[in-house]
Amino acid sequence: MRRIEKSDIEEIAIGATLLGTGGGGDPATGRLMAETAIERRGPVTLLDPAEVPDGAWVLPVSAMGAPTVAIEKLPSWQEMDAVFEDAQQALGCEAFATMPIEIGGGNSMLPIVVAARRGIPLVNADAMGRAFPEAQMVSFALDGMVTRFACLADEKGNRVTIRTPTARWQERLARPLVDALGGSAMVCDYPVTGAELRASALGGTVDLAQRVGRAILGPALDEGNRLDAVLAETGGFLLLRAKITDIERLTVGGFARGAITLSGIDADRGRTVTIAFQNEFLHVHEDGRPLAMTPDLVALLDRDTARPWTTESLRYGMRVHLVAIPCHPKWRTPEGLRCVGPRYFGFDVDFTPIEQLVQRTKELA
Amino acid sequence: MRRIEKSDIEEIAIGATLLGTGGGGDPATGRLMAETAIERRGPVTLLDPAEVPDGAWVLPVSAMGAPTVAIEKLPSWQEMDAVFEDAQQALGCEAFATMPIEIGGGNSMLPIVVAARRGIPLVNADAMGRAFPEAQMVSFALDGMVTRFACLADEKGNRVTIRTPTARWQERLARPLVDALGGSAMVCDYPVTGAELRASALGGTVDLAQRVGRAILGPALDEGNRLDAVLAETGGFLLLRAKITDIERLTVGGFARGAITLSGIDADRGRTVTIAFQNEFLHVHEDGRPLAMTPDLVALLDRDTARPWTTESLRYGMRVHLVAIPCHPKWRTPEGLRCVGPRYFGFDVDFTPIEQLVQRTKELA
Repeated sequence: MRRIEKSDIEEIAIGATLLGTGGGGDPATGRLMAETAIERRGPVTLLDPAEVPDGAWVLPVSAMGAPTVAIEKLPSWQEMDAVFEDAQQALGCEAFATMPIEIGGGNSMLPIVVAARRGIPLVNADAMGRAFPEAQMVSFALDGMVTRFACLADEKGNRVTIRTPTARWQERLARPLVDALGGSAMVCDYPVTGAELRASALGGTVDLAQRVGRAILGPALDEGNRLDAVLAETGGFLLLRAKITDIERLTVGGFARGAITLSGIDADRGRTVTIAFQNEFLHVHEDGRPLAMTPDLVALLDRDTARPWTTESLRYGMRVHLVAIPCHPKWRTPEGLRCVGPRYFGFDVDFTPIEQLVQRTKELA
Repeated sequence: MRRIEKSDIEEIAIGATLLGTGGGGDPATGRLMAETAIERRGPVTLLDPAEVPDGAWVLPVSAMGAPTVAIEKLPSWQEMDAVFEDAQQALGCEAFATMPIEIGGGNSMLPIVVAARRGIPLVNADAMGRAFPEAQMVSFALDGMVTRFACLADEKGNRVTIRTPTARWQERLARPLVDALGGSAMVCDYPVTGAELRASALGGTVDLAQRVGRAILGPALDEGNRLDAVLAETGGFLLLRAKITDIERLTVGGFARGAITLSGIDADRGRTVTIAFQNEFLHVHEDGRPLAMTPDLVALLDRDTARPWTTESLRYGMRVHLVAIPCHPKWRTPEGLRCVGPRYFGFDVDFTPIEQLVQRTKELA
């Protein structure tokens, strides 16, 4: 157990944005909301999964939809209250704590707002260890846990409670709803007990986000130091130093979809690398050869500050470092890859871990 | 108060199909379900609106979606139980009765199934006096009543409860959900008290359906007699004797949409008339001149039996009588026409009542 103070928020937000793999929502508004909530209601208690009683209920809160929409259609605490209260009603009892469903810029912050506003603890865990675009891509579903329900709310007063037999059906119903609600909405889904949380959630990821954020924001002599600190903290690899030379982006069906073209600079001059994304970066390839692929993490870091960019904030001409990071081992199992591997997203390749891809690239060079 | 016996069902189903204006669902499976439910559980009590206590809750049950889907994806009593029980849970109490939300072939039958299964009365009223394609096209919304909630369920075990600030938002959220559930789903929406029902519902429409059904099915010397009996019962007009020579049909966005081309036969030889539909027949025109338009009722009756056809059952070559019937006066008010008039559906004409259109046609001839 420790306390999250206002001064911790920026580090968590920035680190979570990097782990968010281009998605997970914009950190800027989430950070402001979390800082304001702590300022008004006091610091938030961060509990390790081991500190949650077996039968206590934990309700994750997140924003769902296209981040391209969410940067203009800002979330509010009214919607968070609405989904949390609807979820408690569906549960028939009070929640003990909240948690992030995914580690991402916005979605690491919203549960902190909920925790501060309601005076309940935040759990130091999430269900992805990164951000993924679809609702069934959570450790809880991977581990065969019951879906129970999802509550959605928007700023117009619409409130929906969904009960589905599977996590996949939850995504299939929630996605067109989110689209109809304007492309982004607040969600409270996958309620879990303390026992279930310990059995399935990825523990320590709020702490991890803060350590990554500290590597980026801490004192450093130059940008190379920051990048090295990030790679050391995450076990990641630098794949390319580049300039963004093209962005195709469509906001469609409740997602931000598209591709980014990177042209190598400095030592990487002459190389052209493409990243396909669906909210999150999914597949990185160079002349048809994959450089990194889902479920491993991919990040674009600002060349000067090493701060991560989300897909919706990328612009032509930005100078970036392309980084890839091994994902949690859960996602590299056959079941995990069926859920979030490259073939699920329509890429006709078998998953190869980033460690092997980097090794292969070294041998080619 | 009277009892609906098994022997009443066919008349109600056929009459409601005619009033359903081409939509409202297929009567065949609904009729079988209602007959079976009464056979197993006994006759259903039909109450006039005046017989419902002021504070008693009435829960309408209906199928929502594309009738082209519903004729293959058959409704079941499990889904009816699911939406009814979810609605009672959302209400926090037991329902006193059920009612049809619209008068249509299938949707006049499903509440009879619910009433028989649950041993509760059916109210002799509906909220449209015909069938309309969209959820907000109900007298309750027209009269400014609160939407409260809508519960949806499908055969896969999906259950959704929607709370929206307006009836229009209910349609905007329920429609993509129904589409995601496979194009058709069971719905329990617009819960009303006895007092609200009396203030807003269109009373006596189950009786009216049965009288129309009796005109069609009763003893007659020839088909002309049946048609005359239908026109006398409904105040309708015969517009055309025709053969169906073309059907365009698309099942899209949770609706069956398209147009039917009729070529005149017998005394009407040489005339070509088109009917545009969205689940229900909306607009009838001949050489750009409107012959009948929403919200007035339009029906295609079999030339030999005077039985009504639903849009999804129409086929090339059928011989039909095109009939139009004045709608309930509620829909002809400025507020009613904003909700269900021709301009709402994209037809660039002001509403003209069928009585005037028929008069005009006579003067032209």
